[in-house]
Amino acid sequence: MDAAQEAHNREAFRQAIVNTLERRLFYIPSFKIYRGVAGLYDYGPPGCAVKSNVLAFWRQHFVLEENMLEVDCPCVTPEIVLKASGHVDKFTDLMVKDEKTGTCYRADHLLKDFCKEKLEKDPKITQEKAAEFKHILAVLDDLSVEELGAKIKDYGITAPDTKNPLSAPYPFNLMFQTSIGPSGLSPGYMRPETAQGIFVNFKDLYYYNGNKLPFAAAQIGQAFRNEISPRQGLLRVREFTLAEIEHFVDPDDKAHPKFSEVAKLEFLMFPREDQVSGRSARRIIIGEAVSEGIVNNETLGYFIGRVYLFLTYLGIDKERLRFRQHLANEMAHYAADCWDAEIECSYGWIECVGIADRSAYDLRAHTDKSGVPLVAHEKFAEPREVEKLVITPVKKELGLAFKGNQKMVVEALEAMGEKEAMEMKATLESKGEAEFQICTLGKDVTIKKNMVTISKEKKKEHQRVFTPSVIEPSFGIGRIIYCLYEHSFYTRPSKDGDEQLNVFRFPPLVAPIKCTVFPLVQNQQYEEVAKSIAKSLTAAGISYKIDITGTSIGKRYARTDELGVPFAITVDSTSSVTVRERDSKQQIRVNVEEVASVIKDVTDGPSTWGDVLWKYPTHSS
Amino acid sequence: MDAAQEAHNREAFRQAIVNTLERRLFYIPSFKIYRGVAGLYDYGPPGCAVKSNVLAFWRQHFVLEENMLEVDCPCVTPEIVLKASGHVDKFTDLMVKDEKTGTCYRADHLLKDFCKEKLEKDPKITQEKAAEFKHILAVLDDLSVEELGAKIKDYGITAPDTKNPLSAPYPFNLMFQTSIGPSGLSPGYMRPETAQGIFVNFKDLYYYNGNKLPFAAAQIGQAFRNEISPRQGLLRVREFTLAEIEHFVDPDDKAHPKFSEVAKLEFLMFPREDQVSGRSARRIIIGEAVSEGIVNNETLGYFIGRVYLFLTYLGIDKERLRFRQHLANEMAHYAADCWDAEIECSYGWIECVGIADRSAYDLRAHTDKSGVPLVAHEKFAEPREVEKLVITPVKKELGLAFKGNQKMVVEALEAMGEKEAMEMKATLESKGEAEFQICTLGKDVTIKKNMVTISKEKKKEHQRVFTPSVIEPSFGIGRIIYCLYEHSFYTRPSKDGDEQLNVFRFPPLVAPIKCTVFPLVQNQQYEEVAKSIAKSLTAAGISYKIDITGTSIGKRYARTDELGVPFAITVDSTSSVTVRERDSKQQIRVNVEEVASVIKDVTDGPSTWGDVLWKYPTHSS
Repeated sequence: MDAAQEAHNREAFRQAIVNTLERRLFYIPSFKIYRGVAGLYDYGPPGCAVKSNVLAFWRQHFVLEENMLEVDCPCVTPEIVLKASGHVDKFTDLMVKDEKTGTCYRADHLLKDFCKEKLEKDPKITQEKAAEFKHILAVLDDLSVEELGAKIKDYGITAPDTKNPLSAPYPFNLMFQTSIGPSGLSPGYMRPETAQGIFVNFKDLYYYNGNKLPFAAAQIGQAFRNEISPRQGLLRVREFTLAEIEHFVDPDDKAHPKFSEVAKLEFLMFPREDQVSGRSARRIIIGEAVSEGIVNNETLGYFIGRVYLFLTYLGIDKERLRFRQHLANEMAHYAADCWDAEIECSYGWIECVGIADRSAYDLRAHTDKSGVPLVAHEKFAEPREVEKLVITPVKKELGLAFKGNQKMVVEALEAMGEKEAMEMKATLESKGEAEFQICTLGKDVTIKKNMVTISKEKKKEHQRVFTPSVIEPSFGIGRIIYCLYEHSFYTRPSKDGDEQLNVFRFPPLVAPIKCTVFPLVQNQQYEEVAKSIAKSLTAAGISYKIDITGTSIGKRYARTDELGVPFAITVDSTSSVTVRERDSKQQIRVNVEEVASVIKDVTDGPSTWGDVLWKYPTHSS
Repeated sequence: MDAAQEAHNREAFRQAIVNTLERRLFYIPSFKIYRGVAGLYDYGPPGCAVKSNVLAFWRQHFVLEENMLEVDCPCVTPEIVLKASGHVDKFTDLMVKDEKTGTCYRADHLLKDFCKEKLEKDPKITQEKAAEFKHILAVLDDLSVEELGAKIKDYGITAPDTKNPLSAPYPFNLMFQTSIGPSGLSPGYMRPETAQGIFVNFKDLYYYNGNKLPFAAAQIGQAFRNEISPRQGLLRVREFTLAEIEHFVDPDDKAHPKFSEVAKLEFLMFPREDQVSGRSARRIIIGEAVSEGIVNNETLGYFIGRVYLFLTYLGIDKERLRFRQHLANEMAHYAADCWDAEIECSYGWIECVGIADRSAYDLRAHTDKSGVPLVAHEKFAEPREVEKLVITPVKKELGLAFKGNQKMVVEALEAMGEKEAMEMKATLESKGEAEFQICTLGKDVTIKKNMVTISKEKKKEHQRVFTPSVIEPSFGIGRIIYCLYEHSFYTRPSKDGDEQLNVFRFPPLVAPIKCTVFPLVQNQQYEEVAKSIAKSLTAAGISYKIDITGTSIGKRYARTDELGVPFAITVDSTSSVTVRERDSKQQIRVNVEEVASVIKDVTDGPSTWGDVLWKYPTHSS
């Protein structure tokens, strides 16, 4: 199968699935009656149930199992917080404008489309040119604003809709801006991530945890990103649900006490080295990845393992899930290591979870901006003797020598590191003076021996004060759910073979409704039985749908297979009923009084369908 | 006790509770390290757990029990939707500005404070003046912008902080405004309620429900309100979680099939009549309130009953909960009836749930604005013969007579109601012409006999098309939780009587953590047992906190009583442990293997503490 055919098949598969999802209201383009808004989607009833199941399982698997501290912070965020985090200055995409209509486009998207189009559809393309376009696609994310502008100009790329000329690219901040309070003087933004709400609370959370490390905080909530021109349907949207964990840890000890519980897991990993040398992702045991230094530390490795378990329990196909390490140029300068859980779907490999060791960056940034030290303390069992550098500027002499610049000189002296200070001390002792560069003044000054004393003193310390590192697993819930739809979808022929029926093979954990109740034919007796079963299901906390229409039983099964309902109860007598499993279509016969608890067992645990299949008589229709 | 003393006590009680809530991180002023933002609060770990328990129970009690269709729509909302709903034009508060500093205040708050201050603290006030101030307080919400401005001027009210003069009041829209996409041409707002997301999806949801009424849709999500100057702590905030239900029903049949399940409930109600005539709230049986016409219809009554059950299961004191009917002047012009669940706390009676019959208003508004008919159909079993009015303007004659105004005349003729049309028909037949008022032209015209034919024709109709009514229970989750804190809080003396200890008597359903695990003394054996119990608790889905510090057991109990943890497991041997109940402080002795399932039974059901107290030996320490 050639590339074009493959692309066509992917497109057709996606169309089939998206049609089903929209028709059955898994999602709905928001504000549809007003022609919608690009990049905004509603979850309709089954989609909303799937989402709430995924989030409940996330809470169970991460928050409860790991005793994490969950918090819930507002979406509206004042500017100063996002100034500190860097979002006000750097959370941007490069945009170009149609010079006549003003329509906006993402500059990198236009260049990407141009290169792909040339590679795929231009038969006369030279080898040299093809290599050039491939290179651009590879380094697209690294291009500077000038480089991107130059390429667009060189290739004569125009606005896709009108063919009008385009402006030079310029940065557009992706946060939704607003104003807090009536004065118009307090700018605010809708948060682009939930993480900042945790960082600013570090001090209180650390105290809540008994001033002990490590601990993790977690948050589930809405985040916002004012995309320039949203594409890729449900994968790139303007408002989405994030579930984020910030695990705070001593930078000198990133071991994890429960690492052994995941160490033997083996799954597809794609280390940096393999990507650079053109190899493919390969199966690696996570314990070995950590011991070989492929993954930076145990805590990062532990979370990679836990994310693997989380995604596969939900029903993500483990053959289409890989952990890809960020290349050096993809990573923020402060990050120690970063791995994305990528899931393959019809759009390609999609980043669904990011697992990053962000070192001390965020806590330091908020410490600097707020003046509140976001640090941890390690109390020593016995006081430790340490040598400390002591720098004492002699202000009087400095004042005489530098007048108005005295403050800058004092600050620069006090800020010297150990090596620099000891060198100055030696120079002052040997030559009586030393040249000293003051960045804030932009020049060198001469420091004389009487202007500063530098010494090393022995001190007893009772504790170590340090900024914790943070390891951040961040989950894009909507993306995970969309990939889950693709991995769960299949079709099979109807009984008489004249049409293809859609099925979602959701595990009971995820299924929007756990079972349906169908009276086989319309009569009052069966309806009474159906209602009494429905009542027991509600009492057991099992969601169900009751369908008393006279539609054929086959059609009713098909309708609910398409919603991914795993079990169907059909009432064909007043004493016992049949229970049908969605994928195998096998049926068993169970007493009316027992059926709710059987359904409870196979949906909420501890049983599987395989278990109950042995316990009850099978039924053939 | 006089009013001042009572106010003082309320204040002291609130201070005690708020201190505890802040110290134990039930909530945290948002962005505290940056000095916070008025009206924004975080839920810290226990608060977040309480919130997620309340929401899970809401889903169980309403969505699951009633088979509601839950949806999840974005917060970012385009202007047209909120224009249709009326929020762009009418979601305002009246604001005044300090003329020198520009500080903004809510005009009604300043007037209210002034009147209260005079009534409470001015001993020389005349009877006449006192009556005047009381009257203002009673009608405060009804004052027009001019009246409010006049009062502020008359009384010489100035800015509270500076005593500077104030501007005249003017409306300030309370929605957070933003811009969707990069063009700056698509204004949007952060939604002020979640309801609109349901209304705009009515057509799809009705179809999803098999084109049948009644059905209910539900949504839980964030809503936003850019308060001018937030007061009352957690009760009036700028971002909050709403849980809303829109129950769509045939306006001709508002009976509810499950009404009998709540009909016998008796609780405090405060009908309009009783308020107007100065009586107090009284206990009424909801079934009687409906049959006597105090509550407009069964569906409204059913939801009032369900809300009562919901709030009291959570732990709201039923003596401090009342359902107050809106006065005629409080209700929107379109509303058929409206009741607020009000909970009494230290701030007074607080509206926590609104239960309104909004008639067809919202669906009609979106039908008009979008052009998409949001209607329901009732198919008749047999076609029905109905008489229909048929108005046929003769366009040629009208064009000759009215030229450019022809269109307006045609539209006005077609819009005539039955009575008006039949009168015109009679006049035309007797006099040959009729005077006819055309509002869009602002004048009368003369219609001649040859310009229009009016007749009644018999037609067969196969269905009835109508706009459903909507009954909306709307829950302010944060307010309910705050009131729950106040109703659950009490203090009791410590063992040696030297201090007062704080306790929250949350039911297990609400408690942030279900149990604690304490090794009695620090030793490895007990810690091992504690860890194995912890593991079984996790497997059973029970949240717990383990505390292996050497702190005295009494202190550890006190610490967790203050978090409202209902049960404590103390490990004092390797074979059996004690389980202590928070409020009674009673203890029983249970085998290590059994203890997780005992805790599961008393927290998740089906047992109560009373049940297990009989089954296991009591333990006295």
